[in-house]
Amino acid sequence: MLAESGDDGAALVAADVEVGDYRNLEDLLAFAKGCDVVTFDHEHVPSEHLQALSAAGVTVWPDANALLFAQDKAAMRRRLSELNLPAPHWADLSDAPDASAAAARLTEFGDRVGWPVIVKAISGGYDGRGVWLIHSVEDARELLAGEHRLLVEERADIDFEIAALVARSPFGQGSAWPVVETVQQDGICVEVIAPAPGLSSELAETASEIALRIAGELGVVGVLAVEMFVTRGGELLINELAMRPHNSGHWTIEGARTSQFEQHLRAVLDYPLGSTAPSAPVVVMANVLGGPEDVTPALDERVHHLMARWPDVKIHLYGKGFRPGRKVGHVTALGRELDEVRSRARAAADYLSMGDQAKVDAHD
Amino acid sequence: MLAESGDDGAALVAADVEVGDYRNLEDLLAFAKGCDVVTFDHEHVPSEHLQALSAAGVTVWPDANALLFAQDKAAMRRRLSELNLPAPHWADLSDAPDASAAAARLTEFGDRVGWPVIVKAISGGYDGRGVWLIHSVEDARELLAGEHRLLVEERADIDFEIAALVARSPFGQGSAWPVVETVQQDGICVEVIAPAPGLSSELAETASEIALRIAGELGVVGVLAVEMFVTRGGELLINELAMRPHNSGHWTIEGARTSQFEQHLRAVLDYPLGSTAPSAPVVVMANVLGGPEDVTPALDERVHHLMARWPDVKIHLYGKGFRPGRKVGHVTALGRELDEVRSRARAAADYLSMGDQAKVDAHD
Repeated sequence: MLAESGDDGAALVAADVEVGDYRNLEDLLAFAKGCDVVTFDHEHVPSEHLQALSAAGVTVWPDANALLFAQDKAAMRRRLSELNLPAPHWADLSDAPDASAAAARLTEFGDRVGWPVIVKAISGGYDGRGVWLIHSVEDARELLAGEHRLLVEERADIDFEIAALVARSPFGQGSAWPVVETVQQDGICVEVIAPAPGLSSELAETASEIALRIAGELGVVGVLAVEMFVTRGGELLINELAMRPHNSGHWTIEGARTSQFEQHLRAVLDYPLGSTAPSAPVVVMANVLGGPEDVTPALDERVHHLMARWPDVKIHLYGKGFRPGRKVGHVTALGRELDEVRSRARAAADYLSMGDQAKVDAHD
Repeated sequence: MLAESGDDGAALVAADVEVGDYRNLEDLLAFAKGCDVVTFDHEHVPSEHLQALSAAGVTVWPDANALLFAQDKAAMRRRLSELNLPAPHWADLSDAPDASAAAARLTEFGDRVGWPVIVKAISGGYDGRGVWLIHSVEDARELLAGEHRLLVEERADIDFEIAALVARSPFGQGSAWPVVETVQQDGICVEVIAPAPGLSSELAETASEIALRIAGELGVVGVLAVEMFVTRGGELLINELAMRPHNSGHWTIEGARTSQFEQHLRAVLDYPLGSTAPSAPVVVMANVLGGPEDVTPALDERVHHLMARWPDVKIHLYGKGFRPGRKVGHVTALGRELDEVRSRARAAADYLSMGDQAKVDAHD
C-alpha cells in the first residue's frame, strides 16, 4: 500500500508499505508498477492523476469517471438529476460569474425553496466540514467571497438518516448489505444501526435499488455508500456518495458474512462477491470520538475494563491521536434486542472517548 | 514478526517482518528487542532458547516450562499421568539403555495392553509423521535402532476424535470454545465440525474442563488445543497438546465471536478474553490439501468458480506450494443443517484440491 507516512493507521498493520504522496503523480506511477489493480481508502487522489494512471495502463477501480461523482458534489447532483433519482432541490453557485451573481442566485433559491438552506463546498468536505446552515444571504457573504466552489441545497425535513451500502464488480455483479440508520451529532456520524430500525421494508428495498442503480449507472467498481435522508413525509432523498469502504459499513466487519473490506477487494479484483447476510439480528457500530487527553483511567486501562465488562464487544482503534471530536476508532456490538445492543455500543464508545456521558455510564 | 523468509505465509500479510532463524538465539534476541511479548505460531523454537530469552528479560508466552509439554510427548504423558487425566496407556522407550532393552520394553508393553500398538517420536512429529502402527516387535527393529527418541502407546478403540480449544491469560482467566470433532484421513485432519455432532453435552463439558485444567496446571498462556479420542466405550483419552492457534480452531475465524488468533493475542498481552460464542448453529472447516499440479481449471479459476457457487463459503489459501497431501489452505462454511454445511465445505475443499472426489463434485 501507498501511505503518507509509516504511522498511518493502515500502514501500521499492512505488509509492503511504500511511503509517498497521493497528490504526486510520480509517486503514484512508481507505486502502481507491479500492481494488478489500484484502489483507495479515500477519495482525495486528484482526478487528473487517476486519468494519467489509466492512460499509463494501470487498472484503477473505481476509475476517474466514476470517482468524480464522489469528489465533485455538483457533478453528482447533476448526474442524479439526469437519472431522475430523488434528491434535495439544489443549485450550483460555482458557475456564477462573481460573488454578487452567486448571492443573487442563492437569494432566488432560498426564496423559492424556503430558508434556511444548506450551502456546501463542492469538494473536500467531510464530517460536517464544508457544510453551512444559511438563514439569509447575509449569512453567506463571506463564504461566497471565499475560495470554496459552492452549491446550495434545500434543507430537507429530515426524520432520520440512512445509508445503503452496496458493491459492484467490473463484471457487473452487484450486492447490497442491509440498509442502516446513521445517527448524526453535530454533522458527525456517531452511530450506525443495522438494519435501520425505523425503516419500512419497502423503503429499505427502494434504498438498496437506488444504490445499486447508482453503482451501475455511474460505473462504480468497489464499495459504494449512498447516504440518504428519510423525510418526515416518508420520502427518500440522496445526500452523499462515498466510493470506498465507508464508516457506515464498519459494522460489517463482525456483523455480516462478508465485510465491506473483503467485498471491496473482491470487487476491484473482479472476483464474485460474497454473501452480505447479517450475523446477528441487530448490529450497532458506535464511533469513538477523540475526547479529553490525560484523563484517568488512561486509554489502555479503559480498553481492559471494557473488554472485561463486555467480552463480545469488539474494539477498533485506528492508532490516531485523540484530537477532540476526531473519529479515532469504533466499537461493534451484536445481539437480539435493539435497545440493549445500542446502549452497550453507545456506553462502550463513550467510555473509550471519556466524554461526560461515559463518566456516568462507567460508574453505573 | 520473525519469519524464516519473506515468502512465509504470515510474512506475506504482516507488517514489520524480520527475516531470521528461530533456531538461532542471536536472531531471537535481536528480534525480541522492543517486543512487549514474544509468542509463536509453531512449537519448534528450542526450549533452551526460550529459557535464554526469559533469562534476558523477554516476556515469552507460552513460556519454556509450559511449551515443553507440547514439544516433548514423554514429558506431556508423564505430567498428565501425575494429574490423573485420562490418557492411553503408554511407556517411555527413550530411556532404555539400548535398542534391545527398548525392544524388550516394547514387547512387554504390547503383550500387556494388546497388539498392535502405536509408537511415536517424542518430538517433532505432525500430521501423521512420527507415528507408526506396530504389530509386533519385529515391525519396530529399524525404528528402535534409529535416531528418534520414542514412546509407545496402546492403540485406543476410537469411535471418533475431538479437540477442546481453550485460552488462558497470565491473570488466570480461561475461556473455552465449543468442542469440535476432528475428522482424520491417513493421520491428517481433513475436517473440523463445530460443535462435535456425536458428542453428548456431558462429555463436551468434561472435555472443556480437562482442557482448562491442563491450561491451568501446566501454566499455559495463549491458546491450547487438546486433541482427544472418544472411545467406543464412551471414554475420553487425551492424544496430543498444541500451544498455539491450531488447525482445529481455524473455524473460529468466521464461526465464533472471537477467533483463536484474536484470543491468543488477548491472552499473551494479558487483556481480558473475548466471547467464544459461535456465530452459527453449525460450522465446518475443511482443509485444502495439495493435489496434482497443472490441472485444469487452474487454482485461480477454481477460486472464481467456488466464490460464484457459494458466496458464503470463505476460502483461506496460505500461499504455500501445492505439494500433494500438504495443508495449503482451508475453507469454512456456516449454516443450520449439519449434512448440508458439511457437504458444502467438503466439496469446496476437494474442488480446490482437485482430488478425485472434487472432480465428481465439480461436475454434478
